[in-house]
Amino acid sequence: MDAMSTSTPAPTPPAQPAEAANPDRRARRERRDEKKRGRGFHRVASVVPLLNRLPLTEVLSEEGVELIHRASMRLMKETGVLIVDYPSAVETFRQHGAIVENDTLVKMDEDLLMHFVKQAPSTFTQLARNPANNIPIGGKHTVFAPVYGPPFVADYDRGRRQATLEDFHNFAKMTYMAEHLHHAGGTLVEPNDIDVKERHLDMLLAHITLSDKAFMGSVTHLENARDTVMMAEILFGAEEIRQQPALLSLINASSPLRFDDRMFSAVEVYAKARQAVLITPFIVAGAMSPTTMAATLAQQNTEALFGICYAQMLNPGTPVIYGSFLSNIDMKTGAPCFGTPEANLALYGGAQMARRYMLPYRSGGNFTASRIPDAQAGYESASTFMATLQGGVNFVLHSAGWLEGGLIAGYEKFVLDLEMCGMMAKYVKGIDLDEESFAWDAYAEVGPGNHFLGSAHTMRHYDTAFYQHTVFNMDNYEKWEAEGSVDAYKRANGIWKQMLNDYQPPALDEGKKEALLEFVAKRRVEIQTGKLRRE
Amino acid sequence: MDAMSTSTPAPTPPAQPAEAANPDRRARRERRDEKKRGRGFHRVASVVPLLNRLPLTEVLSEEGVELIHRASMRLMKETGVLIVDYPSAVETFRQHGAIVENDTLVKMDEDLLMHFVKQAPSTFTQLARNPANNIPIGGKHTVFAPVYGPPFVADYDRGRRQATLEDFHNFAKMTYMAEHLHHAGGTLVEPNDIDVKERHLDMLLAHITLSDKAFMGSVTHLENARDTVMMAEILFGAEEIRQQPALLSLINASSPLRFDDRMFSAVEVYAKARQAVLITPFIVAGAMSPTTMAATLAQQNTEALFGICYAQMLNPGTPVIYGSFLSNIDMKTGAPCFGTPEANLALYGGAQMARRYMLPYRSGGNFTASRIPDAQAGYESASTFMATLQGGVNFVLHSAGWLEGGLIAGYEKFVLDLEMCGMMAKYVKGIDLDEESFAWDAYAEVGPGNHFLGSAHTMRHYDTAFYQHTVFNMDNYEKWEAEGSVDAYKRANGIWKQMLNDYQPPALDEGKKEALLEFVAKRRVEIQTGKLRRE
Repeated sequence: MDAMSTSTPAPTPPAQPAEAANPDRRARRERRDEKKRGRGFHRVASVVPLLNRLPLTEVLSEEGVELIHRASMRLMKETGVLIVDYPSAVETFRQHGAIVENDTLVKMDEDLLMHFVKQAPSTFTQLARNPANNIPIGGKHTVFAPVYGPPFVADYDRGRRQATLEDFHNFAKMTYMAEHLHHAGGTLVEPNDIDVKERHLDMLLAHITLSDKAFMGSVTHLENARDTVMMAEILFGAEEIRQQPALLSLINASSPLRFDDRMFSAVEVYAKARQAVLITPFIVAGAMSPTTMAATLAQQNTEALFGICYAQMLNPGTPVIYGSFLSNIDMKTGAPCFGTPEANLALYGGAQMARRYMLPYRSGGNFTASRIPDAQAGYESASTFMATLQGGVNFVLHSAGWLEGGLIAGYEKFVLDLEMCGMMAKYVKGIDLDEESFAWDAYAEVGPGNHFLGSAHTMRHYDTAFYQHTVFNMDNYEKWEAEGSVDAYKRANGIWKQMLNDYQPPALDEGKKEALLEFVAKRRVEIQTGKLRRE
Repeated sequence: MDAMSTSTPAPTPPAQPAEAANPDRRARRERRDEKKRGRGFHRVASVVPLLNRLPLTEVLSEEGVELIHRASMRLMKETGVLIVDYPSAVETFRQHGAIVENDTLVKMDEDLLMHFVKQAPSTFTQLARNPANNIPIGGKHTVFAPVYGPPFVADYDRGRRQATLEDFHNFAKMTYMAEHLHHAGGTLVEPNDIDVKERHLDMLLAHITLSDKAFMGSVTHLENARDTVMMAEILFGAEEIRQQPALLSLINASSPLRFDDRMFSAVEVYAKARQAVLITPFIVAGAMSPTTMAATLAQQNTEALFGICYAQMLNPGTPVIYGSFLSNIDMKTGAPCFGTPEANLALYGGAQMARRYMLPYRSGGNFTASRIPDAQAGYESASTFMATLQGGVNFVLHSAGWLEGGLIAGYEKFVLDLEMCGMMAKYVKGIDLDEESFAWDAYAEVGPGNHFLGSAHTMRHYDTAFYQHTVFNMDNYEKWEAEGSVDAYKRANGIWKQMLNDYQPPALDEGKKEALLEFVAKRRVEIQTGKLRRE
């Protein structure tokens, strides 16, 4: 058999709320939160980042980790890393003892590189404007952030189109409301209807006013990074953000073994202001790295450590995350693939490397190459996301909304991915083995051959027993067909609309809001008139 | 950024085949197989079961395993297991020293139970009629088998309908052709157009004539199990199947803590003929077990070991598999859920228990509660399947085709799941760390900042570098839209039709075929006329 021939009837909830029996305050709060979840993906009072109790998957032996390490040290020393169009960074490396060839190629030995890598803290806390949403980065914590960077959006009703500021606002609102997203992210979508020179101001303003979760800084230009820091200073205080970072910004290497002026100038601004940077090699193996995962991991390691080293040379102790964005090409067409076995193995290997240097690790997400949230999108996303959690990733960009290799932010995909985020929050808790979990009273009450639906033990655990789904649907075929044979894609369509409909902005200090609006207005004029910035 | 803004061009394959450079025969064969895969999911010469090189996920500490073990011993001793309507099994337990209450409830202490459990071998090989397809069960091996038991089938064109013998034949053919299914399975679908009393004959005949992979026996009636053994004797030889089992049959407990006459009479027939049995508690937690995973795992352990003990009492050394079919109810509706965090944690815990007793483990598959292969089906299936591989499952029933909690065998779902099976075959190989994998010549050739597409190293690895997809599609939005915006569900539709179109039966010895047809014809008459069987 092994087929569910009938649905079992739903148990009746107990007349007396079961919480009273449980003395544990945290359990009570979780139970309350669980009840709120019934309404959808709406937020609870404050963010609770995951504490990952799973044993981590380590695909490399200790010796394997050392082989990757030594290979990357050889790349650093013999092959080197290019710095394009940013002489000041080249000079920084030279001053600190690196060898520079042709004014662009930087080479270092292990001692020099590791001396600086060691300055980086192994954990840090990023400030949110709601202190209850301050977010721990590193250790056993896992933080989910939404999709980053798509130029397009898509939904069930209108298909794919250029993203606008309205879309940015929508994703900012939904991320704020989503209980299982712990971080507001950064470039949720590219607001293409706004001039590229002042776009960053609108995005930052949206993050600050529409949400109270921690957010990411702009990296598209040196000036934009400076604007980001100044707005954070207005919101949090200049002194405060030097104590604990209020910004976390995504720095991509232009792999292989290359960084450019845009990214390294942003590192300079943020590191000097002691704001966190997330150094991420951007590798599609077979194109930006060899096809083999050993070489790819070694190269990724060289690039990540090189960027981290730069931040530490600029300001020792700057908080960093060791990043990995690693996929592979389809050898037949050259297209990037997602959710592949090779990428998942590399995700685990990358995590081991980051842990070797005691650095927080970024990787994974709900990745897919598919253009719509179809079955392929589900398989690929879940394959990557399972590996993300099993590998012990600390910061998960692209946890929700990613379609077509990151070119599209999907409204429905966002909602479907939230279900995965919610399930993972339960997953990482592992299995409880306390006396209550062995349910001895239930066996005494029920005995062999009878069901447990109405037992006192089941009633005590009614509210928190299992993850409760919001968009995945368990109806049998008959009920499903009678209600219109709606697939998951269409079901998610109703949910994001409801979320946007229910959205209410978090309160923001009026003085701060005014100061921010004033700053933005002034900067817009300066940008539009081409005036040099004050400084 | 972190978005794939352009597809990279495909590398040109090398003029000289790269294999010549590689002295390793197995690598050459794999490369050839990889090329054949280009045609679709069609079979290669013989089955290659997976050797799982992944480190296994263990969610229970050593102490946790012992807590589950001790709890299950307490259930066995104090609560007991019911045997319904099968006094001969009760008598077997009594004769071997168990305590029997009310002629139906069996209780044992740890020493007695473990004495018999220890008789079971930790690995065995199941015979296939093509000896190249003999299949190792246990250890580091993972074997994929198709969906088992659905009364319905569904496809894109015709939706859901009652399964027929024609559907059974179709799934048997596709399973035979599927490179990544190592085992033919058993009740692929219920052939509802055939009288239930002789259905097993048609299913066995189909497995034997349409495929040459190992298959499962009938468990629906004592007589059917006997017919199965007799047909295996005709095909393999009576002596041969006593040396190595040619049959593996699925025995479900009617949980909680109960077995019935149908299943235990089948165990009796198979164990006495020394054929393998797969003892699987059938648990939807919250209904057939308490809501907590500790109790559920303990109960599952009691049930699995009880069935295994029975087989060993009947015939010490009978090959067995420790089975787990474990899901949980939706507390709001009572419906069974699949791909849940709780079920995945229990999958890992179950694997640890099976390993504690050094027994092969069955669990997992491409599970979903969804009724069609939509995004939900993809997320849920991949979540379960990733855990299946990470947990080190040895025998994976339901690797392909499962929909709606096993009520539907889906033609397109079957094809989509094959993609996951193929990806997992690559995944379990882990990361190679030999000198060639560090690609030193590629860095010397390419240098920082340039792509690796045309490098000699990439060309050497062109054929085997990455998993090559068959039904998942990496086209960009423009190409995808121009070709009709086809989703994965529809794409899979064309593939199964092509598979059935391309099907060619494997050769079968004419004498054996005649003998089998004669046996079946005789049995049909006996069944239809209600005659007692010869014996």
